[in-house]
Amino acid sequence: MLSPSLEDYLEEIYRFLDQQGYVRITDIAEKLNVSLPSVTKAVQKLGKRDYLEYQRYKNITLTEKGKKIGNFLVTRNKLLREFLLVIGSDCNKEKEAEAMEHYLSQKTVEAITSLVEFFKENPKYQQELLDFQDEFKIERSSQNDFQDDLK
Amino acid sequence: MLSPSLEDYLEEIYRFLDQQGYVRITDIAEKLNVSLPSVTKAVQKLGKRDYLEYQRYKNITLTEKGKKIGNFLVTRNKLLREFLLVIGSDCNKEKEAEAMEHYLSQKTVEAITSLVEFFKENPKYQQELLDFQDEFKIERSSQNDFQDDLK
Ligand SMILES: [Mn+2]
Ligand SMILES: [Mn+2]
Repeated sequence: MLSPSLEDYLEEIYRFLDQQGYVRITDIAEKLNVSLPSVTKAVQKLGKRDYLEYQRYKNITLTEKGKKIGNFLVTRNKLLREFLLVIGSDCNKEKEAEAMEHYLSQKTVEAITSLVEFFKENPKYQQELLDFQDEFKIERSSQNDFQDDLK
Repeated sequence: MLSPSLEDYLEEIYRFLDQQGYVRITDIAEKLNVSLPSVTKAVQKLGKRDYLEYQRYKNITLTEKGKKIGNFLVTRNKLLREFLLVIGSDCNKEKEAEAMEHYLSQKTVEAITSLVEFFKENPKYQQELLDFQDEFKIERSSQNDFQDDLK
């Protein structure tokens, strides 16, 4: 099992390869806002664990395992952004998906996937949910005075 | 903002006080499966940050701020267990709620709260979701052959 940090590296590597066909250490450093040596270290770890192949000054390529898991990670991230959108959470969806993603079991990823698909296929229900939520927000707005203590 | 670990301590302290009226360092150590010195250290940190009052050999009591946040943490944990139940995730709900809880914004907690309430008030829709999910599971069951690589 990969650490949250290594999951993020593999996710970005997969995304770059998918979108531009190649990925450089500098691309990853810029995207994840970390130093070049940090990326090199992470890439070496992923290499040792057979997710990718990398030699200094050569291209990074994903192994079959790396492709399979990278695809899963990118899909999971997209799913969570969709989930946050569908349930009407007024948060920073990118940031929040990025934080939640590492702590969900496969079972929950599946359940959330079908929840999102369910609302996509039944837009009427989703509208009912959002209307319900609006009423709910008004009821609860007086209870949010401690938000500053939390974040 | 509290760290995930301090949130768990405050959550348990609130729960014990709520359920048995008092809480000892040993209660917390046993419940969270950590050492007595770890609990003492955490309790001192929470004391310094004005969530509780504690002196060695005396009772732990929560401040107004500690009660407010403790109640929020206990409620959030319960909400996530309900959420996992409502969306039909076949996971260990206690363990998973425990892991997810620290990474959600207040906005998402609110959105999930109204999602859970929405399904409670519309059991017919929830049943439709679960039926939809069953079909979905059959379709996807062939895609889960890489689960071992993940967890
Ligand atoms: Mn992440
Ligand atoms: Mn926890």
